[in-house]
Amino acid sequence: MTTPDGTLLDQTISRISGLDPDAVQAARQRQDCLTKPRGSLGVLEDISVQLAGLAGQCPPPLPEPATIAVFAGDHGVHAQAVTPWPQEVTGQMVSNFLAGGAVINAIAAETGSRVLVVDMGVAGELDPHPMLVSAKVRPGTADFTVEPAMTRDEAVRAIEVGIEVANRLIAKGTRLLVTGDMGIANTTPSAALIAVLTSTAPELVTGRGTGVDDDTMALKVASIQRGLQLHQPDSSDPVGVLTAVGGLEQAGLAGLILGASAARVPVLLDGVIAAAAALVAQALAPKSVSAMIAGHLSTEPGAAIALQQLGLRPLIELDLRLGEGSGGALAIGMVRSAVRILRDVASFDSAGVVDKEAANTEQLR
Amino acid sequence: MTTPDGTLLDQTISRISGLDPDAVQAARQRQDCLTKPRGSLGVLEDISVQLAGLAGQCPPPLPEPATIAVFAGDHGVHAQAVTPWPQEVTGQMVSNFLAGGAVINAIAAETGSRVLVVDMGVAGELDPHPMLVSAKVRPGTADFTVEPAMTRDEAVRAIEVGIEVANRLIAKGTRLLVTGDMGIANTTPSAALIAVLTSTAPELVTGRGTGVDDDTMALKVASIQRGLQLHQPDSSDPVGVLTAVGGLEQAGLAGLILGASAARVPVLLDGVIAAAAALVAQALAPKSVSAMIAGHLSTEPGAAIALQQLGLRPLIELDLRLGEGSGGALAIGMVRSAVRILRDVASFDSAGVVDKEAANTEQLR
Repeated sequence: MTTPDGTLLDQTISRISGLDPDAVQAARQRQDCLTKPRGSLGVLEDISVQLAGLAGQCPPPLPEPATIAVFAGDHGVHAQAVTPWPQEVTGQMVSNFLAGGAVINAIAAETGSRVLVVDMGVAGELDPHPMLVSAKVRPGTADFTVEPAMTRDEAVRAIEVGIEVANRLIAKGTRLLVTGDMGIANTTPSAALIAVLTSTAPELVTGRGTGVDDDTMALKVASIQRGLQLHQPDSSDPVGVLTAVGGLEQAGLAGLILGASAARVPVLLDGVIAAAAALVAQALAPKSVSAMIAGHLSTEPGAAIALQQLGLRPLIELDLRLGEGSGGALAIGMVRSAVRILRDVASFDSAGVVDKEAANTEQLR
Repeated sequence: MTTPDGTLLDQTISRISGLDPDAVQAARQRQDCLTKPRGSLGVLEDISVQLAGLAGQCPPPLPEPATIAVFAGDHGVHAQAVTPWPQEVTGQMVSNFLAGGAVINAIAAETGSRVLVVDMGVAGELDPHPMLVSAKVRPGTADFTVEPAMTRDEAVRAIEVGIEVANRLIAKGTRLLVTGDMGIANTTPSAALIAVLTSTAPELVTGRGTGVDDDTMALKVASIQRGLQLHQPDSSDPVGVLTAVGGLEQAGLAGLILGASAARVPVLLDGVIAAAAALVAQALAPKSVSAMIAGHLSTEPGAAIALQQLGLRPLIELDLRLGEGSGGALAIGMVRSAVRILRDVASFDSAGVVDKEAANTEQLR
């Protein structure tokens, strides 16, 4: 989408800035006055400081309501037998999300969150539904072992769909975005993206996805190796990497992250598909990392490698490998608790509690 | 408390049985039919199966509402300078809990849970409050480096207070108990209990608590070593171990766990104080472990060693070291999500989704 101000993608990237240093400092200082030993809330303190910096105010607003945006697409590389699941399952699971019968719906109910499904490129037709955004860029990617997964225009369009979804949700009141995904075979392009964007060998970032045996695993690694050999993607051109070996839901999620980041709204990442998308967002706009929170550590080896490059520590490590947004959505309550603590907990002074640190400092005088 | 049926403690222990094997099997089978790859929810699947076995039905009831029961007490070993915090902070923090100003109140608000404070033995007097149960067994323990922390009768009474709290809360509708604690210096008796009950050297289970320096750390380890040398507690007599080197809140929490377990209600453990109490409960009634869920892994080294002996995997690892029940309460949503998933997610059959495993099994025929 090009307007007189440039493309939506360019405009969005230009709006992304880092954390507000004053709000970060105010949040650190406030944490140190709360009635608890300094630092005793570990990673939760860091999250609260990040969200203050992102919002540019301390305390930051409570990040709710949350919307879990599930980006769905199919993958041409499925033809290489990289998974035992038939491709139709992508569309079948989308129907399951819309009917409220999937795992992500159960977690959404627990956290009071909304689920939105974005059809980025499911191979079959999907009936309209109030929870479904129809934004099919193409009916699945091409098989990247024989041709580029998509055209460059399609990659940009897919990213912009994600930006538009973020913009629309935020305009309607969403204050925490959670990345979700559905796409049979989508751990394969995710591993390819992570391999290129972290300069890591494919065999080190490729995992067993939703459960593949040794033979399928070998086919999966070999397919990624062939794709990378064929296209020789340039890691300094993230849109080019998406074009060559990416997926439509990864592109959409990269856009969602960029859109959230430009609007200074936090985005909770799910697993390895989100991590691949986050690397694309980071490559396009390094400061977009300021808006990212890693919900969990997927069992896929590429997830840990991607999170390391992003500098993110996952909130949950429970051997999850489902996708759908499940590992991101499970962390919603922790993120909200982190903000509530910064906002609501009494200070030593106000509660009349003796502060060890202050007492020690005085002793030293 | 002794009735014609024996003491409350004996009666409670006699009611504790393990998981119901039929409900466990039904839950495992149900998990394998849900619309997700088998095993893809990792530890959450195990939690759902455990709760089915505990309830004796599949799916189990949603474990809500939750109550965070914060057991508070003071510790004579404080005289050995094992912590930089003054003892008055125990009572001051109890007032903070009752005023709603502490971290545990913020997490309780996020999870829709109730906080109840149990005065097991705070040194000072506390004013009555609707959220406070006054059950002071004694105004703090004695210094275990010079005499037993309490008498054997007091230890039993403290455990029975915990059982009574569990019984009363469950009678009023609580379906998930979360262990909380407050007691300046209480990581010291916790380390002593863990050392004895896991047969580990004190220096390996002792940590820096809410933040002690090297000198204080050395005093802490030395105090535990002196206490153990003086009393030579027998690990096969858990009440004797509590009597010698325990704390009143650890005893109360052991009772809470036993009471929950006897009523087949799950109990979410917070950090190292809860882990020490759980070891006491396990020693008194090995099957009480069936009701335990480890909320998080405290940074205190004794926590990991205790959880290993309990056979529990923590849900959260975020470098928390606060206590109050914070690390247990943060996991409430995950436990509820685990049950919701088992209860609410559609099966492959009902959702019309192709099941890879079933497809593969048929191919093999």
